[in-house]
Amino acid sequence: MDFLDYLNEKTLLVNAKLEEFFPLSGEGIPILRESMRYSLTAGGKRLRPVLCILGYELAGGTDVEVIMPQACALEMIHTFTLIHDDLPAMDNDDYRRGLPTNHKVYGEAMAILAGDALFIEAVRLFLRGRLPEPLKLRMLNELTDSIGVDGVIGGQVLDIRAGGLRHTAKLAENIHLRKTARFVEASLVIGVMGAGASEYFINEFRRVGRNLGLLFQIVDDILDETGEELELGKKSRKDRERGKCTFPATIGLKESRIKAEKLAERIKYDARELLNEKSAIIEGLAEYFLNRRK
Amino acid sequence: MDFLDYLNEKTLLVNAKLEEFFPLSGEGIPILRESMRYSLTAGGKRLRPVLCILGYELAGGTDVEVIMPQACALEMIHTFTLIHDDLPAMDNDDYRRGLPTNHKVYGEAMAILAGDALFIEAVRLFLRGRLPEPLKLRMLNELTDSIGVDGVIGGQVLDIRAGGLRHTAKLAENIHLRKTARFVEASLVIGVMGAGASEYFINEFRRVGRNLGLLFQIVDDILDETGEELELGKKSRKDRERGKCTFPATIGLKESRIKAEKLAERIKYDARELLNEKSAIIEGLAEYFLNRRK
Repeated sequence: MDFLDYLNEKTLLVNAKLEEFFPLSGEGIPILRESMRYSLTAGGKRLRPVLCILGYELAGGTDVEVIMPQACALEMIHTFTLIHDDLPAMDNDDYRRGLPTNHKVYGEAMAILAGDALFIEAVRLFLRGRLPEPLKLRMLNELTDSIGVDGVIGGQVLDIRAGGLRHTAKLAENIHLRKTARFVEASLVIGVMGAGASEYFINEFRRVGRNLGLLFQIVDDILDETGEELELGKKSRKDRERGKCTFPATIGLKESRIKAEKLAERIKYDARELLNEKSAIIEGLAEYFLNRRK
Repeated sequence: MDFLDYLNEKTLLVNAKLEEFFPLSGEGIPILRESMRYSLTAGGKRLRPVLCILGYELAGGTDVEVIMPQACALEMIHTFTLIHDDLPAMDNDDYRRGLPTNHKVYGEAMAILAGDALFIEAVRLFLRGRLPEPLKLRMLNELTDSIGVDGVIGGQVLDIRAGGLRHTAKLAENIHLRKTARFVEASLVIGVMGAGASEYFINEFRRVGRNLGLLFQIVDDILDETGEELELGKKSRKDRERGKCTFPATIGLKESRIKAEKLAERIKYDARELLNEKSAIIEGLAEYFLNRRK
């Protein structure tokens, strides 16, 4: 199957499952659910759930339904971090995915609480489904490792504190590894674990996943410098205005592009070594990350 | 053992264990850990962990070390909700437990992220320890049920939205059940589950725990109206200024006091029915909640 067909098919599946797992009419305070769903259903590529499903299938998983609670929980967690990241006290963004950000619609208090609740409900969802309980616990451990003090949240702290530090490619990589790459890696690895893969297979996927995350973020930096706002669905050149520590800001656009291309080659090489003829989707993903316009 | 001796002994144990589980020098970004620990070590009664340990011991658990990761995780989660609750966009509180609130010391962005990270690290901690994995999963499910869209966060939404609703004792009870009582109940029940108790025992403790939580919150409302700021460690009469929906605001101080006394009697009666001669600590706890000055 062509990579884009695969991506589109799984994105639709994830959207349908998110609707099933977290419908508008459910328990809890209606306005809170509405606010959570506003950001959760605002589109996006669903990359983390798709990576989770991909890892599951590449590791030999055959019934994709089995991994859907965990895959969808990843998107809820990603949405929680975006809502908090956009807050006035953080990046103060008015638009996300072409729509007003959560706090612009529901106010800051609700946006803080909607983010909190998305994480909590994500953990609840993560515990559902038919996977064996020890496996679920191991996957949840992988998840929390990737988003805590040394993961996404740690990366956000480094990101907002970078103003007081010397901007180097090393710092940019440190921020990106924590803020993006580690969670992308975990998304893939959680799917691989869900299929009951061996330690060897898990660790090989770990490297591929981390490089995919890093590649995604370098291209994100480049697009912030060069992209069109209408295509991006958010303001461009914001990183530069804010003095963020990015790859283009430290090694320049040309070197950033070369770094991205090298990473994509590395990912493709590793995928072929690991998966032989089954490497096509990973290779397509690397190309897609490298050449995306938004 | 006298209840206050029990409380003091377990509070010391919880404080020592929190230090062990989440020391200043650990992985992650140092300033983030510092900010998390600032609020985590700011004192407080450690009621939720103590209730968890109490539930474990009353249900027949003999090695209290076994339940400490889960007990301490409850305090980290409680601290997360307090930090976010104090934010300018929420209750805008400058003091908590006699100290400047987290955002007054570290700024809003860090306070938001410290809250997020405390929850994530709490889940990581919750997964540790020697309890069987299926039991841990069940306990984690109990926890997330009690703090999500129909728990603490749902209660906070109701609380901040109450301005637009008619204030009745029913609404006050709805807010308190979600914002406080359900999580207090879960704290006790998680300990009971950890000891491998029967469904019957779990459900009986559930009622006792919920009533303890409700009692705690009614007295909190009363203290906000009548307490001394120096004793409370925070401003009093803030609920009234903010037009919060509380019991004293809806049924008056005298009726609130009667309601609290009736609840305490109910808790003591249930505890005697359930625990016979082992009910003393729960009875002492009910008295303590009823008569506390801060």
